[in-house]
Amino acid sequence: MEPVYIIKISGNIIDDEQRLHAFLKQFAALEGKKILVHGGGKLASKMAEQMAIPQQMIDGRRITDADTLRIVTMVYAGYINKNIVATLYSCGTNAIGLTGADGNAILAHKRKHPVIDYGYVGDVDAVNAELLQQFLEQNTAIVVAPITHDGKGQLLNTNADTIAQEIAKSLSGFYQTILVYSFEKKGVLLDVNDDTSVIATMNKEKYGQLKAAGKIFAGMIPKLDNAFSAIDAGVGKVIIGQAEELPLLINTISGTTIEK
Amino acid sequence: MEPVYIIKISGNIIDDEQRLHAFLKQFAALEGKKILVHGGGKLASKMAEQMAIPQQMIDGRRITDADTLRIVTMVYAGYINKNIVATLYSCGTNAIGLTGADGNAILAHKRKHPVIDYGYVGDVDAVNAELLQQFLEQNTAIVVAPITHDGKGQLLNTNADTIAQEIAKSLSGFYQTILVYSFEKKGVLLDVNDDTSVIATMNKEKYGQLKAAGKIFAGMIPKLDNAFSAIDAGVGKVIIGQAEELPLLINTISGTTIEK
Repeated sequence: MEPVYIIKISGNIIDDEQRLHAFLKQFAALEGKKILVHGGGKLASKMAEQMAIPQQMIDGRRITDADTLRIVTMVYAGYINKNIVATLYSCGTNAIGLTGADGNAILAHKRKHPVIDYGYVGDVDAVNAELLQQFLEQNTAIVVAPITHDGKGQLLNTNADTIAQEIAKSLSGFYQTILVYSFEKKGVLLDVNDDTSVIATMNKEKYGQLKAAGKIFAGMIPKLDNAFSAIDAGVGKVIIGQAEELPLLINTISGTTIEK
Repeated sequence: MEPVYIIKISGNIIDDEQRLHAFLKQFAALEGKKILVHGGGKLASKMAEQMAIPQQMIDGRRITDADTLRIVTMVYAGYINKNIVATLYSCGTNAIGLTGADGNAILAHKRKHPVIDYGYVGDVDAVNAELLQQFLEQNTAIVVAPITHDGKGQLLNTNADTIAQEIAKSLSGFYQTILVYSFEKKGVLLDVNDDTSVIATMNKEKYGQLKAAGKIFAGMIPKLDNAFSAIDAGVGKVIIGQAEELPLLINTISGTTIEK
């Protein structure tokens, strides 16, 4: 099967215009079919602050009230998504920006939780793989903003790691899917303060041991849970590492490769 | 040839959630291939105010500095565009939201003017009719935000009336194009204070006379210039009227019909 790269870039690179541009050059140079899923960076929080909208966080996840949804829709689906698309054209790559509402790309439902009301946060129900394939087959890169919809007129804020995972899963019957979670570190580290301590490969057994030993914690846990869920669902390769090393990551020369 | 409706809705309807919803229901009920081009309403100006970004206007056109471009990209391409798309799904219509950057839908260049620097304002060079046809042939409604790009990485703020006109022109070789400019009035009025004084048909001769008599002025002039330019370029029908009367407008029962 032909490869498709699904690359998730995280906030810290989006906040840095020069780094983002350098990354997008690398992404544009990547041969073959490709999808970029972006988070939001600090711009949404900054705007909320400027507009005096208080922000609530639970377990590292933003509580999305109506005002916050309005801001993240503006920042993620408007400013960031469209600037990435325009930049990709300047790098010679055809691209289209999508939210989950566009072409019903990602259908979700408002999160149900027995205790916490997350507000307008969406959990993914279905990815429209046919729509994505249509663009991929035309060699158009897809740029996905982490906003979904419920089919009843409601937009929903959705975790970008989860979106990347769900997209990779949905395409795994048609392509050899290579899912890259990029973040600020060079991979999953054995010692969080030592950038050279990258764990080259990670399986569930090792993950369990490291978690029990307190070596893996905080934001790394949902990221790895997403990664294992993707591998279990038939995604070809899952790699966690630094955006700047994209060409090395996709060849599993750098970063942490997730194993079944 | 099969008809394609290109409907431009203006700001005042976008500012009113209930009216917008009622209009989108009518738009969704419209059988056949359709494109909706939206302006921005007052939300962009309100946000600029909240964020203490001064706004400059020349001849009713916003001067788009870098901060203003950021805001209009957020509001038009993010908030308004994505909410319209989500609402159309709730009305049973497939839809995709596009800026000019997405799929290189509308290529533009930064306006050159001997005296005034309009800032990041784009004048349209080319519409990607092939891309639009692809969605139309799948019976997916296209929702266009008035943001274009220059192909070199720069987004540009572009007049929505002009975008609607350029889209209609570009599709006129393939479809019977019906272009509707909707605004707050029931059509072009002989007496601006009398809503019943709608001029049913307008040709260039009548336009020249009414302009000379001071009966047509201000924002109506660029709108009518756009309308005549569209008719001259082969657009099948051009109608100016009130959004709420959409079913009457497309059948030229209401509003002002532009004649060659």
